[in-house]
Amino acid sequence: MNPVDALDFSKAGGHVAAIALDDATGEVLMVAWMNEEAFRRTIETGEVHYWSRSKDRLWHKGEESGNTQKLRSLFIDCDGDAVVLRVEQLGGAACHTGKRSCFFRRLESGEWVDEGVQVFDPADVYGR
Amino acid sequence: MNPVDALDFSKAGGHVAAIALDDATGEVLMVAWMNEEAFRRTIETGEVHYWSRSKDRLWHKGEESGNTQKLRSLFIDCDGDAVVLRVEQLGGAACHTGKRSCFFRRLESGEWVDEGVQVFDPADVYGR
Repeated sequence: MNPVDALDFSKAGGHVAAIALDDATGEVLMVAWMNEEAFRRTIETGEVHYWSRSKDRLWHKGEESGNTQKLRSLFIDCDGDAVVLRVEQLGGAACHTGKRSCFFRRLESGEWVDEGVQVFDPADVYGR
Repeated sequence: MNPVDALDFSKAGGHVAAIALDDATGEVLMVAWMNEEAFRRTIETGEVHYWSRSKDRLWHKGEESGNTQKLRSLFIDCDGDAVVLRVEQLGGAACHTGKRSCFFRRLESGEWVDEGVQVFDPADVYGR
């Protein structure tokens, strides 16, 4: 069986949810989407590709910032509509804000508190 | 500001992705969906509620199995379309298969390998 056959792209408009974890620490870095091509390219190249809903195209993570993700291992969930990727995050940050993780805000007493680790200045990396 | 205002339900048909982690170990247990009501009920009750796409209704996780999830902390991502929930998983298993995590299959040399920890027999819990 081709591994892609276990994926169910039908539930979210041709995509599965993809959760990237830092392979060294297990920290959740980001959540994005994969279509079939993104999944295949990730497997074939060992570099994580997503489907960008905002750009509406295949997205080689880090193509602009250089902060690519090297795939270390990949898991699929029970019903095949989500994958977990354990990655080596080059540059040390997954988020376009320059934070290590996109999940840098925690709910505390009804307020979102920024607990993020700032790794780079996005103005330096993206020039904006 | 109401914390729900930071959530963007528009990108996935009224839902945000919700990733549940075991608060003690950080292991990813499952990925599901929340609509606004599921988010509010989770915050208000301290027990995790999702929107079930298969049942097409609000889903109090564990309502059938008794394996509810006690919310320990909650994070939101940079663009507000995903949340991470750190939970205490009652019964020790999040997956309807009786595995501890839904992500029990790892890709190895092009094959999905079951590495899951079987916590309960679903026939005992669901009677089917």
